[in-house]
Amino acid sequence: MRSTTAWRTATSGALEPALIRRRSLRPDDLAVRVDHCGVCHTDLHSVRDRTDDEAVVPGHEFTGAVTEVGSGVTRFRIGDRVAVGNIVDSCGTCAMCRTGQENFCHDFPTLTYGGTDRLDRTPTSGGFAREYVVRDRFAYALPPALDPAGAAPLLCAGITVWEPLRALDVGPGTRVAVVGLGGLGHLAVKLAAALGAEVSVVSRSSSKRDDARRLGAHELIVSTDAAQLAAARERFDVVVDTVAVAHDLSPYLRLVALDGTLTQVGHLGPVTVNTTDLLIGRKSLSSAGSGGTRATAELLDFCAEHGITADVEVLPSAKVNEALDRLARGDVRYRFVLDMSDL
Amino acid sequence: MRSTTAWRTATSGALEPALIRRRSLRPDDLAVRVDHCGVCHTDLHSVRDRTDDEAVVPGHEFTGAVTEVGSGVTRFRIGDRVAVGNIVDSCGTCAMCRTGQENFCHDFPTLTYGGTDRLDRTPTSGGFAREYVVRDRFAYALPPALDPAGAAPLLCAGITVWEPLRALDVGPGTRVAVVGLGGLGHLAVKLAAALGAEVSVVSRSSSKRDDARRLGAHELIVSTDAAQLAAARERFDVVVDTVAVAHDLSPYLRLVALDGTLTQVGHLGPVTVNTTDLLIGRKSLSSAGSGGTRATAELLDFCAEHGITADVEVLPSAKVNEALDRLARGDVRYRFVLDMSDL
Repeated sequence: MRSTTAWRTATSGALEPALIRRRSLRPDDLAVRVDHCGVCHTDLHSVRDRTDDEAVVPGHEFTGAVTEVGSGVTRFRIGDRVAVGNIVDSCGTCAMCRTGQENFCHDFPTLTYGGTDRLDRTPTSGGFAREYVVRDRFAYALPPALDPAGAAPLLCAGITVWEPLRALDVGPGTRVAVVGLGGLGHLAVKLAAALGAEVSVVSRSSSKRDDARRLGAHELIVSTDAAQLAAARERFDVVVDTVAVAHDLSPYLRLVALDGTLTQVGHLGPVTVNTTDLLIGRKSLSSAGSGGTRATAELLDFCAEHGITADVEVLPSAKVNEALDRLARGDVRYRFVLDMSDL
Repeated sequence: MRSTTAWRTATSGALEPALIRRRSLRPDDLAVRVDHCGVCHTDLHSVRDRTDDEAVVPGHEFTGAVTEVGSGVTRFRIGDRVAVGNIVDSCGTCAMCRTGQENFCHDFPTLTYGGTDRLDRTPTSGGFAREYVVRDRFAYALPPALDPAGAAPLLCAGITVWEPLRALDVGPGTRVAVVGLGGLGHLAVKLAAALGAEVSVVSRSSSKRDDARRLGAHELIVSTDAAQLAAARERFDVVVDTVAVAHDLSPYLRLVALDGTLTQVGHLGPVTVNTTDLLIGRKSLSSAGSGGTRATAELLDFCAEHGITADVEVLPSAKVNEALDRLARGDVRYRFVLDMSDL
């Protein structure tokens, strides 16, 4: 066994430093020194909305460097820059795994934290730590062009919006609306614009208008202004709804054009949808979250080619609880990334 | 004004014969002698689940012959066989009308019954009558190859399943499951098979297996058999769900393959869907009902070419209340059509 320092949930309700165990390397494992780890809404939920007493180390979008490789590893060498996302293993044999969609593994993929290792059955602990041990298939070479802090959020926020943009064939001529300009939304704008789409942002106020334009959108529609929403009726082939709390989908379904799609990326759970809102205009509702190895590798290549990383505010990892507080009230443009060198 | 005999709701709760008015022909109107009118679930609701005291003449899928034409009509002549569906007018100027999708008219289309005429503001009365007066744009030439009784249900049940099959690009290589083998379902099977798809039927029992095969399906999956449903997991690009009462969509969403769609054609109204059921496998939910003039004309041509009509049980119109009783308990294979010659 190995050990490393991590930020772990404590009885105080906050994250506190702790010494945690990592497994000894298997033949197909890498040891990764975690340099930067993004802070995702899922992390916030896992710390603040816990339903059991199991201690959790959050963090599932990180970048760093390989410090040791298992005996069978050929794809990576010590010193390589790598990135890891929110899936660290899967069955490898089902139809979904065989097409590189391990995120839909029939046997459910192993999550980076809060999961259970498929071999030793121990709980997985995440990337709010100085070291992670990961199966080589689920580590990605980090392209040299990408800043490691800004690249970390690509591994969760980025891939979550990339998969639906690709599945919906977003490109030149596609009219895309991104609802909500946060961690996911700002990457959706950058990626859709780089794919060639015409992008609009739908936001509760006009305060992010300059940001929206800088990110690649050509306009910002204020969702609390009924006239602006009405004028945008049926204008978009794809609406990417990144609002992460329960909300009425009807106003956003009205923005969808004939045969278009609203894709919900906020892990809302059960939602009520009026089939009439889908019927009128023959619209579709879909949902997305995380991605498979094939699309993740494709995303990193695309971002390297187009110079895309997340807009991040980097904090020393000791400020993780402050980061969670500020994330809870939406006080971040647009993603916190923890610098783990203080661990 | 003109008058005709019709089956109209009465205080008894049943349909009773009544003399009703039809408007005098406008320049772009046709008078149609209604020979055959299908009996749709909507008709059942309009008679049995009335929420006000307004008398209703149901019926919105009928065929017959032109008996008189307005002064400006050029597309039809007296004696022409025609068909009329559930929309008889629309604004004609919005983006949806301009693309032939009058069913999505921004000003809401005028329904064949239970609507309000756009010019004289009188309520519309349906096709359970010996005569109907309709604007020529919303009448369709009935192809000579099609039996007029069997063709009547194409105008509502048929077009309701045709639009999503076409929008989802169903054709050779597409794997389609049709859930529920009733009025809509049996036409979905015939049309999808004629489009070249591989079609399966999902039904509560195996009693319709022979029918499913005869209609063009290659198998019947019994939905109450968990093992059969499990074996069909993620096997279908398109699932057409024709179940017309509120039900859990999850078991049918599990049948949808990666990037596939479940389309709900039962006018369910609000449904609760777990976004996780959509997320896993990147699936879409859509809904469909009725169709525009462009698709309706296309459907009639396709049916003439492929010899497709509904499987109907023709009853004299005097048996309309019996037909509604039997429809309410699902005792029909697969659509009642009223013969109006007794009126």
